[in-house]
Amino acid sequence: MIEFPRSKATASLALLMAACAQAPPTATGEQPPNIVIITADDMGYGDLGSFGHPNIRTPHLDRMAQEGQRWTSFYAQAPVCSPSRAALLTGRVHLRSGMFGRRQAVFFPDSRAGLPDEEVTLAEALGELGYATGIVGKWHLGHLPPYLPTRHGFDSWFGLPYSNDMDQNLPEGSSNQSASFEPKIEYWQVPLIRNETEVERPADQTSLTRRYTEEAVAFIEEHRDGPFLLYLPHSMPHIPLFASDEFRGRSTAGIYGDVIEEIDWSVGQVLAALDRAGLSERTLVVFTSDNGPWLSYETHAGTPGLLRHGKGTTFEGGMRVPGLFWWPGTIEPGVTQEIGSTMDLFTTAITLAGGQVPDDRPIDGVDLGPVLFGEGGSPRDVMAYYRMGELYAFRQGRYKVHFVTEGRYGLAPERTDHDPPLMFDLDEDPSERFDVAMERTEALAAVVAAAEQYRANMTVAEPLFDARGGS
Amino acid sequence: MIEFPRSKATASLALLMAACAQAPPTATGEQPPNIVIITADDMGYGDLGSFGHPNIRTPHLDRMAQEGQRWTSFYAQAPVCSPSRAALLTGRVHLRSGMFGRRQAVFFPDSRAGLPDEEVTLAEALGELGYATGIVGKWHLGHLPPYLPTRHGFDSWFGLPYSNDMDQNLPEGSSNQSASFEPKIEYWQVPLIRNETEVERPADQTSLTRRYTEEAVAFIEEHRDGPFLLYLPHSMPHIPLFASDEFRGRSTAGIYGDVIEEIDWSVGQVLAALDRAGLSERTLVVFTSDNGPWLSYETHAGTPGLLRHGKGTTFEGGMRVPGLFWWPGTIEPGVTQEIGSTMDLFTTAITLAGGQVPDDRPIDGVDLGPVLFGEGGSPRDVMAYYRMGELYAFRQGRYKVHFVTEGRYGLAPERTDHDPPLMFDLDEDPSERFDVAMERTEALAAVVAAAEQYRANMTVAEPLFDARGGS
Repeated sequence: MIEFPRSKATASLALLMAACAQAPPTATGEQPPNIVIITADDMGYGDLGSFGHPNIRTPHLDRMAQEGQRWTSFYAQAPVCSPSRAALLTGRVHLRSGMFGRRQAVFFPDSRAGLPDEEVTLAEALGELGYATGIVGKWHLGHLPPYLPTRHGFDSWFGLPYSNDMDQNLPEGSSNQSASFEPKIEYWQVPLIRNETEVERPADQTSLTRRYTEEAVAFIEEHRDGPFLLYLPHSMPHIPLFASDEFRGRSTAGIYGDVIEEIDWSVGQVLAALDRAGLSERTLVVFTSDNGPWLSYETHAGTPGLLRHGKGTTFEGGMRVPGLFWWPGTIEPGVTQEIGSTMDLFTTAITLAGGQVPDDRPIDGVDLGPVLFGEGGSPRDVMAYYRMGELYAFRQGRYKVHFVTEGRYGLAPERTDHDPPLMFDLDEDPSERFDVAMERTEALAAVVAAAEQYRANMTVAEPLFDARGGS
Repeated sequence: MIEFPRSKATASLALLMAACAQAPPTATGEQPPNIVIITADDMGYGDLGSFGHPNIRTPHLDRMAQEGQRWTSFYAQAPVCSPSRAALLTGRVHLRSGMFGRRQAVFFPDSRAGLPDEEVTLAEALGELGYATGIVGKWHLGHLPPYLPTRHGFDSWFGLPYSNDMDQNLPEGSSNQSASFEPKIEYWQVPLIRNETEVERPADQTSLTRRYTEEAVAFIEEHRDGPFLLYLPHSMPHIPLFASDEFRGRSTAGIYGDVIEEIDWSVGQVLAALDRAGLSERTLVVFTSDNGPWLSYETHAGTPGLLRHGKGTTFEGGMRVPGLFWWPGTIEPGVTQEIGSTMDLFTTAITLAGGQVPDDRPIDGVDLGPVLFGEGGSPRDVMAYYRMGELYAFRQGRYKVHFVTEGRYGLAPERTDHDPPLMFDLDEDPSERFDVAMERTEALAAVVAAAEQYRANMTVAEPLFDARGGS
């Protein structure tokens, strides 16, 4: 067992607090709402019933869609895990926090760095506003002591420090990149952590979704007097796929379907816990994914639905993900094609909590409240698609330009630079099939100019993913 | 103006009637339910909100999905128009009625044949049971007098005899197979028919969906005392795409989206008419498509969503279509992955009407009642994918084998014969990406044997599509 020694407290939030000295205006006029953010890992745009999957059954997520808002142009801010999570928790494009690499796409077990102390996470921001803050699930923003969730504003943590396919210990000659590969827990030596203490290694991944759920429900029950932030980033359906005995073989869609149906069950448990605690009408629940499906794993991967490509690419399938917002009695039910990003959860949640986002640094998240409450459109009109610290693509309104494209993640990279860029009309052509750059030159010039301005305005920190080595 | 002379009445139904001498058992114990079957033309699996389209808005169809049953493994019986419609109306694989060709895939304006008189259509069957029967929309089962809807059991007809892209009169050098092509009504000399009289030529396609809708609503109002069969096969979204002024430019998804949103509006008008007439709880409404999207028309085509290929192919995208069943208070709401075919509407409707299907000929349709009423699974376990009279593919349960594949419709055919056949696990791999034939040889043998038996049992009439020439 490794015990991570606890060190100094979280970053100074003086500026944030200065803005919040007065009593916060809240949506209900009473206590500000609880915030629950649930994410799946590598789940595709097309994996839920309400997003068109024919046979994965997701009744609880479909209930969220039906009673709440289903966002069809909602984006993870990066096509892979660590940068996407950094953006969600800081409300900032990950380049600003150094959460990228020129050689490495994510953190690994021998990475030396993590989310910098000076970043303000959603947990820190809401914690300063009086929220209890818990994370149950995968962190992946640095596994060394100074970078753990408990050093970034979370009161408690139960979960994995990085992806469940890391610390590999595969049998000689085997490859986990095959649908016929049968995973066993001992093939991965991933630790399971409570707060800063390793409690199990290798983590029993079979029961991971179930145990995350039990922890989440216990957190809700413990903090029912609120307000609280519960961040529940599931480790599944990232490969290797594990489901509990109750779900193994239960779906018709194979182990991938079993895993999604167990996550759906988990969402149902969270909603039921909120119902039992009388908190449904005082809690915003968000469900999304950290990026698109890892297509190279074939039937062990999800589907992007009608979108092109998947994880690791800056096509829509890599970054457009299901977005579900649920808050009965407050959210205007329906479907919206307004543009949102996981970064916007930062700003939206802090606004709901009656706070203000830090004003000593650029914040990229916008408040999605106007859409959620049926008061207007999204303040977000653009989406920047970065890969390995480079702006590969840019969306403004209906148009998306690609400066660089690559093929599927996990396959040999086939980088192609495009000059002039490709341009797709995502409204008429969400599958990115028909390049209209040469037909609509005025629009092309406008989007390219907007992209260049965005790139020029981006503050870029030193990339922190490339520092590896040692143990 | 052409007037089609009216000739002899519809086929003898002695056998059918013999089976129905006693009072029919009905679902409500009173009058049997009205039947409304609405089809879109060339609409893809992924074109509706409830089937995952991100920005085509289909609130009325989504209401049908929400209040009724959404079928995710529902099939048109053929990948192109005429054979698909023949199967729907006769409950029989189209080979049995000669509704196929070895050289021609559908009927054309110079075709000499039509649906044979000896076929029993759903209109004839329900008409004999006391139903009023109306068709509003596209026929495409023979435009010469002996073959018209009014000779096949329909009391009334308002619509087009064949596809809206026929009788072409395109300007020199133009091609309608281009997204930038701007269609004008006069480019197609398609007649609009009322009963057996041509009332407009060229048909004003701009107002076609609106006028179909008005006719359908009038039919419902006129026959509110019921029971009635209303068959409403829209001409859209088959190219050329036309929408009324109210819908042109209304969607964000271009003209294709406008057209789908107008069809959705039309469905809303039908449901509202049923509500107004107090018939909602006495009417089964079904919505589906005649085949998948005609992908070669690019942004003027729909999307198969996560399915492979589209119209004209025997991949799933060519024949799996949205299936929506609505009957408030009677249908068990939900989503089902049970297998259904448009042929089954024949048997299901006749059963609901208290009749029995003809017993003097093979009937391929099965009664989907057990699924609709929450009493059990679908009696259908197989799906046969014929193209040009040849069995290209066959599904039994989760497995689908392909003996022959071809690429996209409208592109140069690239026929490939497969020996051994390809086999896909449609439950684990609905996108037909991973051939498992060599890994699951026992399943392969079983499905191939079932396919061979199915093919051997099929009665095949003389193909009637190839007879062309004259005017």
